[in-house]
Amino acid sequence: MSDSATKAKPAVSPLAPPGGFPDLPVIDGVRFAAVAAGIKYRNRDDVMLAEIAPGASLAGVFTRSATRSAPVLDCEAKLAALGSQEAGFAILVNSGNSNAFTGAAGAETVRAVCAQVARAMDLPEAHVFTASTGVIGEPLPAEKITGAIAALKAGLSPAGGAAAARAIMTTDTFAKGAAATVRIGGTPVSIAGFAKGSGMIAPDMATMLAYVFTDAAIDRSVLQDMLRAQTVRTFNAITVDSDTSTSDTVMVVATGKAGHGRITDADSVEAREFAAALEAVMKDLALQIVRDGEGATKLVEVRVTGAASDADADRVARAIANSPLVKTAIAGEDPNWGRIVMAVGKSGAKADRDRLSIRFGDILVAEDGWVAPGYREEAGAAYMTSDTLLISVDLGLGDGSATIWTCDLTHGYITINADYRS
Amino acid sequence: MSDSATKAKPAVSPLAPPGGFPDLPVIDGVRFAAVAAGIKYRNRDDVMLAEIAPGASLAGVFTRSATRSAPVLDCEAKLAALGSQEAGFAILVNSGNSNAFTGAAGAETVRAVCAQVARAMDLPEAHVFTASTGVIGEPLPAEKITGAIAALKAGLSPAGGAAAARAIMTTDTFAKGAAATVRIGGTPVSIAGFAKGSGMIAPDMATMLAYVFTDAAIDRSVLQDMLRAQTVRTFNAITVDSDTSTSDTVMVVATGKAGHGRITDADSVEAREFAAALEAVMKDLALQIVRDGEGATKLVEVRVTGAASDADADRVARAIANSPLVKTAIAGEDPNWGRIVMAVGKSGAKADRDRLSIRFGDILVAEDGWVAPGYREEAGAAYMTSDTLLISVDLGLGDGSATIWTCDLTHGYITINADYRS
Repeated sequence: MSDSATKAKPAVSPLAPPGGFPDLPVIDGVRFAAVAAGIKYRNRDDVMLAEIAPGASLAGVFTRSATRSAPVLDCEAKLAALGSQEAGFAILVNSGNSNAFTGAAGAETVRAVCAQVARAMDLPEAHVFTASTGVIGEPLPAEKITGAIAALKAGLSPAGGAAAARAIMTTDTFAKGAAATVRIGGTPVSIAGFAKGSGMIAPDMATMLAYVFTDAAIDRSVLQDMLRAQTVRTFNAITVDSDTSTSDTVMVVATGKAGHGRITDADSVEAREFAAALEAVMKDLALQIVRDGEGATKLVEVRVTGAASDADADRVARAIANSPLVKTAIAGEDPNWGRIVMAVGKSGAKADRDRLSIRFGDILVAEDGWVAPGYREEAGAAYMTSDTLLISVDLGLGDGSATIWTCDLTHGYITINADYRS
Repeated sequence: MSDSATKAKPAVSPLAPPGGFPDLPVIDGVRFAAVAAGIKYRNRDDVMLAEIAPGASLAGVFTRSATRSAPVLDCEAKLAALGSQEAGFAILVNSGNSNAFTGAAGAETVRAVCAQVARAMDLPEAHVFTASTGVIGEPLPAEKITGAIAALKAGLSPAGGAAAARAIMTTDTFAKGAAATVRIGGTPVSIAGFAKGSGMIAPDMATMLAYVFTDAAIDRSVLQDMLRAQTVRTFNAITVDSDTSTSDTVMVVATGKAGHGRITDADSVEAREFAAALEAVMKDLALQIVRDGEGATKLVEVRVTGAASDADADRVARAIANSPLVKTAIAGEDPNWGRIVMAVGKSGAKADRDRLSIRFGDILVAEDGWVAPGYREEAGAAYMTSDTLLISVDLGLGDGSATIWTCDLTHGYITINADYRS
């Protein structure tokens, strides 16, 4: 029984960013390393370590799954109890095994790994955060990870972000990175992040795994609030298959080394400028996860406006984005707007057939309870051949709006998830 | 743009009942006819008519979709306003076009068809019920239907149920029928029903289309309450693809011709005996729809017990039954219980990792927050090769329980819904 770990590897997603993995800026106060510990995969790195200098602010959001993994439970508890920032921090992530549904032994494994990392790096155990991604329900071979700590420590480098991003991949067909720079009070501030995720993606607080590092100086509570709000609009606004992982984790680390005046007020100009740059990086990473959705050939933005409330708009957007019939129609390049009507109807949101309108890109498809008079099926069919699609629905009822990103449902998804027995 | 109407026809589902369409008993007071009106399909019947003698009790439940079809809206209004039962009734159903999202013209079409049927059969217009299934968003060619009424009337026969069942099929690969007999006060009572449905199946009040006829004598209000309660446990407890149709309709017709004392009390022995037989027919039809799920190769019963409430159990059962990762694992005959843990976790129901247990058939797979000590992967894999599977989850928290039936998610589903452009 396995999930992402033992699947046959598809070729790189056709939706992969053309430029490849970006050049991540070095973040003063953070070093990375990656090694091959042989947890599940052969001939590739599968553990990464990030070392963070003293004084950093950390924020995190995690899956709300009722069966969340041992590392998630450990991270949540440590973040909630975090006291002094005077010591440094470490983040250790393995792929190939999620350490989820592994009972008391799973928690013990997290404790053992954290203790060893803390000892090797001279850090408090409460400052060591881990994450695990891969098979659910198999014991995590802690000794393989602890046996790799010395090599990880020796390999730490400010330029190691790309290797770290590759080490946490599972069914990902490309490594996902994003960066931004922003000036705060005239001082340049860098933001660099990476993420993994491809299937079991319908994040309910955060996506599979994403780590963002910045040299900004910012209070932990301001950073945490910022992350929580932005997660709603980025990682929580994507869905590949409506299935929510047991391991979803997003962490943001701000080392404070940039040299600008510390951000302590969430409503300040500096906070807003930093927030915009951070959100751009988070959104970029979130969309890369959709672009690497299992079997995906189309990136689809579903934009709902005119709903009675934002919550209703979100309901409609998710109903469309998660509908197997809508997603297979998109895979078939079929401008099947009747299935969008169906999804609106089943969403549970307030809707009035005679007031809703549907657009594919700029093409008005349906309005006034019927197909739009000027709509031609050929125009819709031509639009659907694009690999990036916008489906807009206006409910004509109020000011509620929401945007969700998803991908199509193809034979590739079935092949990845059904055809290969573990 | 089309749905079920123009898809390539797969071979008969491997899960089709081995005996084929059952011999439906004749129901005194009901006659059926079917003809080929050429609405969408060629060389097959696509309209059926049922004529019901005066004095019958009718009950119905319909989709709760906010974008429900014109015929559904018409049936709801007529049932709510139904007065005298002294005149007879007619039910006319077409396949190939759902008359959904067809604006004011859709309602006008229903009115025109009902008026013509009423005139031809000398019935009040308020006693004519219609349903339409097929393409969403295309105008229903009313003249093709009205042009067929004379032939339908001429063809009416007490033995026409099987032909009627075939006429309402869309992507169905086999016609679905079920029957039962029950003695009420020593008098034999017959129940015969048929249904259609294969995709866009996650009924939210009733399934695509199902019609059940009986010669029982029963008050309309008792029958309606019975139908509503039984729908929850039968048609509303199945899901093929989590997509809810705009046309879901279940109607029950009781002609009262059997000759037993009329059932007027829902709590009487007679009512309970009749209810049990009716529910057996409804469940049989509901499961046949799952057996004909688009691309289905496995019929799966998901049974959840020990939940904090019945609503929580239902949430967990639906999360499992609708999870693409669970359904693809089943298609791959992979005993991937980690995905069941995932689905429990994402359901939103109260759950405790350390108290839940999972069984495949009689095989205990997981308990106490981890894989069961005696579980062997080979046993799970062998079980998954069966074409009828039982997945049981006990949450260990309370007395809440629920059962949902579903099928697997295969390449066949993608092929049916994505590979064929309309």
